[in-house]
Amino acid sequence: MSETTDLAQVAPAAPDFSGWTCPAPLRDQERIVMGHGGGGALSAELVEHVFAPAFGGRVLSSLADSAAVELGGARLAFSTDSFVVRPLFFPGGSIGDLAVNGTVNDLAMSGARAAYLSCGFILEEGVEMAVVARVAEALGAAARTAGVEVATGDTKVVEAGRGDGIYLNTSGIGLIPQGVDIRPQRATPGDVVLVSGPIGEHGVAVLSVREGLEFGVGVKSDCAALGSLVEAMLAVTPDIHVLRDPTRGGLASALGEIAVAASVGVTLRERDIPVPPEVANACAILGLDPMYVANEGKLVAFVPPAHAEAVLAAMRAHPLGAGAAAIGECVKAHPGMVTVRTALGGTRVVDLPIGEQLPRIC
Amino acid sequence: MSETTDLAQVAPAAPDFSGWTCPAPLRDQERIVMGHGGGGALSAELVEHVFAPAFGGRVLSSLADSAAVELGGARLAFSTDSFVVRPLFFPGGSIGDLAVNGTVNDLAMSGARAAYLSCGFILEEGVEMAVVARVAEALGAAARTAGVEVATGDTKVVEAGRGDGIYLNTSGIGLIPQGVDIRPQRATPGDVVLVSGPIGEHGVAVLSVREGLEFGVGVKSDCAALGSLVEAMLAVTPDIHVLRDPTRGGLASALGEIAVAASVGVTLRERDIPVPPEVANACAILGLDPMYVANEGKLVAFVPPAHAEAVLAAMRAHPLGAGAAAIGECVKAHPGMVTVRTALGGTRVVDLPIGEQLPRIC
Repeated sequence: MSETTDLAQVAPAAPDFSGWTCPAPLRDQERIVMGHGGGGALSAELVEHVFAPAFGGRVLSSLADSAAVELGGARLAFSTDSFVVRPLFFPGGSIGDLAVNGTVNDLAMSGARAAYLSCGFILEEGVEMAVVARVAEALGAAARTAGVEVATGDTKVVEAGRGDGIYLNTSGIGLIPQGVDIRPQRATPGDVVLVSGPIGEHGVAVLSVREGLEFGVGVKSDCAALGSLVEAMLAVTPDIHVLRDPTRGGLASALGEIAVAASVGVTLRERDIPVPPEVANACAILGLDPMYVANEGKLVAFVPPAHAEAVLAAMRAHPLGAGAAAIGECVKAHPGMVTVRTALGGTRVVDLPIGEQLPRIC
Repeated sequence: MSETTDLAQVAPAAPDFSGWTCPAPLRDQERIVMGHGGGGALSAELVEHVFAPAFGGRVLSSLADSAAVELGGARLAFSTDSFVVRPLFFPGGSIGDLAVNGTVNDLAMSGARAAYLSCGFILEEGVEMAVVARVAEALGAAARTAGVEVATGDTKVVEAGRGDGIYLNTSGIGLIPQGVDIRPQRATPGDVVLVSGPIGEHGVAVLSVREGLEFGVGVKSDCAALGSLVEAMLAVTPDIHVLRDPTRGGLASALGEIAVAASVGVTLRERDIPVPPEVANACAILGLDPMYVANEGKLVAFVPPAHAEAVLAAMRAHPLGAGAAAIGECVKAHPGMVTVRTALGGTRVVDLPIGEQLPRIC
């Protein structure tokens, strides 16, 4: 360094973006809004128009919960999720449980049993050590329950006011069994649509303890690891076409994305969709539709009709599928669209949400 | 739900921690401080006393940059890192480059070539779309340079004031070649300690554009993916004992952790440690020791003496190792301790840092 500092040599802290235009139209082109994290149409646009073109590659453009990759002759599922749920503890779980089960379930949705998890903490300066320890304990306990090992980790700390207690990322890897090919694109007209139990519990449970919104509802999060349930289903037949856990955006988003990915229609029977009365009541009060409320321990399955009854029986025989039900069919008509036959005999379209009803639900 | 809400049923938003005590003494037992994210003694204590007991398992207690795991008959390296660097863009790179190279290098430090990356964004509401897009483009370009595919991703958004523009997590997987066993515990008295080039550039580059601290120094971050350099070294011999990228906490922390992990001593020759004059000058002004300043494109290697010269030659023949040097030896004396012989003939101990000199450097 010369002793006289040449200021012209200093690189700017941020490049000049004045000439930048988004590669394709975005609904909100200028700034990130909460809805970009909602798992709905805004999230999909961000991936489609910003991330996918930047990253290239084949896998991100698929809509699956986890990527199927080849490595050393093994077929692996690989998935990542960040968790920013607020508050950190809620009826039925915590961000620690969520971080394990969310990623374990993403892997299970390609038929893989999770083997190893990574775990990255972003801690806010000043958060109580006891809170960090309780979250870590919940994470460790959930990992043991799910039969997955926390293999590697990382911790960063940001200044007070630059975070919110604890943000967590987990990534996971697992083996995809031979002969199993589960992905949204495989949804086929005629497939029976199964759901593993009553919907809407996670979202309502978290909302019931949100600051400024506390209400007594007695609903606990359904947060659970679905690996063993999927194994029980695959023991009936490896020919399950699609699995999906209806988290952010709920059942409506999960089914809508499958319909779009496979260019098929989905018709549901409203009366067959299991909604606990407590969830229905809370949603009525809050103006929410249970179809769009997040679940963290449920799955939807598209199963060929020949196997549907046996797979449903296997689900019902498993503790995490006791409330399983057949709720509709995959159809040729109205590709890309989900419709529901109402209890009164009418039919309505189930739209993909734009943003999110409930920010920071996971 | 009964129509009369029973408030006693409402689960508390946060459990009662009043009776909680840390499983083992921590230097700061009550609350998280910035130093817990610094990669020094405080970080190590957090892992040792809080995370490792909670998670169990064998791998987290090792001090390696990445975990070596078996899956489907393949030996894989698996690693995760979160990135909270401030500012997002700095001379020589951005958080996007850092997120790719940081994880690729963690995998390379076990001899693995990174194959697939995951990528989790935590975006702050209100951040400019152009900034997100530039970071994504940098990330994609860095991935292509490193020859790694971004296979899966996730995006969450937090409210303005609960983040800092962009936080990023990447996790990576790669194959560990047959016959390669690189880990800190293998450091052996007699090993020659090599460094791949001049130290301290990343930390000084980021600091030079930190708000309130801007100074003209002309130093660019060394941020680079080291996979191909490691391959060139392994082509000389698979018998490299230890590799480590001296990121947070710099060369001092990397060597100190190896000395502790293997119960060996390390002696360095100060005059042989390459420090660019610009880095030395900036450190002198700021009161920093270049030995503790972060690097993002350098590695240290412990190599048996029989191979040291050939490995050093292979490093020097590679663009990312052109400035490589032998800087010391692994010794039996003073296990767990790093010493340096000064230019004047004295010897001083290189302590492990407690917290961090430079918060949010990666």
